Amino acid sequence: MRELYDIIRDKDRVLLENIPEAALSDTLGRRRGTAQALVYPLSTEEVSAVMRFAWKNRIPVTPRGAGTNLVGSTVPDGGIILDLSRMNRILEVDLETFTATAEPGVLLQDFQAKVESMGLFYPPDPGEKASTLGGNIATNAGGMRAVKYGVTRDYVRGLTVVLANGDVVEMGSKNVKDASGLDLKQLIVGSEGTLAVITRCLLRLVGRPEYSLTALVPFASLHEGIRSVPAILQAGLHPTAVEFVERSVVVLGERFTGLSYPCPEAEAYLLLTFDGRREDIEDLVERARELVLRHGALDVVALRDPVRATEIWRVRGCLVKAVEAISEQEPVDIVVPIDKILDFVAFVHQVEKENNIRMVAFGHAGDGNVHLCVMRGERSEEDWNRDLGACMERIYGEAFRLGGVTSGEHGIGLSKRLYYLSHTSDVKLAVQRCVKDALDERHILNDHKSYLA
Amino acid sequence: MRELYDIIRDKDRVLLENIPEAALSDTLGRRRGTAQALVYPLSTEEVSAVMRFAWKNRIPVTPRGAGTNLVGSTVPDGGIILDLSRMNRILEVDLETFTATAEPGVLLQDFQAKVESMGLFYPPDPGEKASTLGGNIATNAGGMRAVKYGVTRDYVRGLTVVLANGDVVEMGSKNVKDASGLDLKQLIVGSEGTLAVITRCLLRLVGRPEYSLTALVPFASLHEGIRSVPAILQAGLHPTAVEFVERSVVVLGERFTGLSYPCPEAEAYLLLTFDGRREDIEDLVERARELVLRHGALDVVALRDPVRATEIWRVRGCLVKAVEAISEQEPVDIVVPIDKILDFVAFVHQVEKENNIRMVAFGHAGDGNVHLCVMRGERSEEDWNRDLGACMERIYGEAFRLGGVTSGEHGIGLSKRLYYLSHTSDVKLAVQRCVKDALDERHILNDHKSYLA
Repeated sequence: MRELYDIIRDKDRVLLENIPEAALSDTLGRRRGTAQALVYPLSTEEVSAVMRFAWKNRIPVTPRGAGTNLVGSTVPDGGIILDLSRMNRILEVDLETFTATAEPGVLLQDFQAKVESMGLFYPPDPGEKASTLGGNIATNAGGMRAVKYGVTRDYVRGLTVVLANGDVVEMGSKNVKDASGLDLKQLIVGSEGTLAVITRCLLRLVGRPEYSLTALVPFASLHEGIRSVPAILQAGLHPTAVEFVERSVVVLGERFTGLSYPCPEAEAYLLLTFDGRREDIEDLVERARELVLRHGALDVVALRDPVRATEIWRVRGCLVKAVEAISEQEPVDIVVPIDKILDFVAFVHQVEKENNIRMVAFGHAGDGNVHLCVMRGERSEEDWNRDLGACMERIYGEAFRLGGVTSGEHGIGLSKRLYYLSHTSDVKLAVQRCVKDALDERHILNDHKSYLA
Repeated sequence: MRELYDIIRDKDRVLLENIPEAALSDTLGRRRGTAQALVYPLSTEEVSAVMRFAWKNRIPVTPRGAGTNLVGSTVPDGGIILDLSRMNRILEVDLETFTATAEPGVLLQDFQAKVESMGLFYPPDPGEKASTLGGNIATNAGGMRAVKYGVTRDYVRGLTVVLANGDVVEMGSKNVKDASGLDLKQLIVGSEGTLAVITRCLLRLVGRPEYSLTALVPFASLHEGIRSVPAILQAGLHPTAVEFVERSVVVLGERFTGLSYPCPEAEAYLLLTFDGRREDIEDLVERARELVLRHGALDVVALRDPVRATEIWRVRGCLVKAVEAISEQEPVDIVVPIDKILDFVAFVHQVEKENNIRMVAFGHAGDGNVHLCVMRGERSEEDWNRDLGACMERIYGEAFRLGGVTSGEHGIGLSKRLYYLSHTSDVKLAVQRCVKDALDERHILNDHKSYLA
């Protein structure tokens, strides 16, 4: 590995020993890998040179950004960790074409702040804002605004990537339309670092909405809350976010933050956000109010006070951490078709009872993405592995029966690999493996955790 | 080829002789191929069986829909023509998940009518409404509404495809979010029948807009018209369409249709469409009026009379045919970044003068997609080939210099293959060929016209 000193001339950017623990895991820190080297490239050329070296010597490479993933995506399996977090410059914000060019290590929160300061808006908004753009693209990050604005994939105009063999490929451009050849960048989006290393991102922006307003809507039952969602979507109200959370889950967030939700007698809440011009928003919230009250809402609390709005969102935003504070957990982000959310959540409650395991459910009612935190509680390691496995078999089985998929935004990584493999057709897996072979025939990029191996 | 009778049991759906001329070409009919068989499958299973037969015997296969393409995409090179036009059933419109499932031979106009009758809306709207859904997906068809709604790719939730070897693969689902494995359907969208045969389409729908209104905006120069477009986009007016057309081009459409545009002293027009709720639209048109008048518009004619609106759009919609009526032409649909449209059109006019060749330019100002009809006029075959070649070299060269791409919505097909090849990097071509090898290693699917060969 000493050859890496010839490639990365700056000695501070090559570690061959004392690799930090954090670089060997993900944000949960439960799975831990090994590595012989950690490098911090600063350019596409350096990434290319590292990959050429790794390719020639068949050394595994694990790219990583901020390491905020929850599914083991950044756990290395020996070889080289390619840490892109120092490639963190925003290179251009182009007001004429509504695009921005950035390096992959730019943090989402920095990028959003920058473009918003220029009157523009980058809609993808996963919960973790300290994640990198490269990581967001590699997992096709979703988030709360997907119901109106779509997911990260919808905002990737172009990528510069380095292939496993070190070749540099430009994919996409500033052009809005393109029917010229295969859209290769689409393969890279969501490929979790298994096909190429992203070294530059060309992202689509939209105009910054003038105003945003959230309404908290308590319901006597989750059933009534979820049943009102299709009506909201069909009415053309174009909500930016449609979140659901049960009262029993809110309580965890309340305890964690010391804050509280109104209407504690409710069994469930919807959070509806609208953005756009101020006068339009007031009108939309009024129409939403009439609609949800007709569907059994107990109240509609428009959060006009920004402090109060922030508090309400803090409770919603802290739920994974609130669970983590009281128990080890397995995070799940199954997606089902939006008309199957109720069936799925009902099944989750049934499994909770029958398998005697706590599962906290909340999520994106507008797009069917249901987050589950499966809680270990006081279980021994052995019991936890057995009970979690049994419970997950049932949960994933039901999700697939309902037409759902393994992951909506976290990716497959290590933790969902087996569930994904057991519920995906052989022919589909075979095609994916053919694509992997086509782009990385030596299987050096993130191969051990991949379903492409 | 007689084995095809064993695969397609209905003799009327297998032709081994007297293959119609139309099946050997595209809608322009200038390029003509050969074929030994034409089959009309009715199911995924039949397509799969035909492909298994072709794969085993290394027979070229050319899938086709309505054959409305302009670039030779459906010209066969011997072997089997797989005509999917009889797989034309709309299988489901799902009001709960805002999706529809249809066979690939459904005509766009029939599909749009069906979903609109149910209160839903399928936004992709290429000029040719008698094209098939499968063809639209294979070319990632764009159209006028792309500036607001995106292109066909943005509405493909899932596909059933048959690979070259006959394997059937389901890609995608009704789920809104998906971070579970490679998004293989994205490879198929825009692949022009070179990677797989589409046999079922799962498409995303949105709510049907209540109202739509177009404003015709004359300008004293194209320059002023185009310069107002970023202002319209930046103001958040969300136009459904932003078309530009020069007066000299409108004249051709007026002659062809017998209709006329107002304000004939204008040098150029913008057509701005807005859709949504009626009261919002009036407000948007008013805001657009103020804005374009500040940018030098001569007038703003809101086309509230549906008959008049249809007339105006007929003139815009007939331009390719209006040119075709007076001269053979080469259709071009180059895209440039939206801030480069003026530079590009200015260059087109320069080439017109210097190369003494008429090129009619119009297109989608909101997305940079510039349509050119290069007119043969009275040229001999030899002169035409020489002059067209010289002119196209310059035009494509300039488009690439400006950061543009070969095709926005027509695809590459046969007619743009050489331009695409000469302006695409070797490494990008190599990656595309690796993908082709991975999915069709015997190169039987549409190989002769592909840049993947």
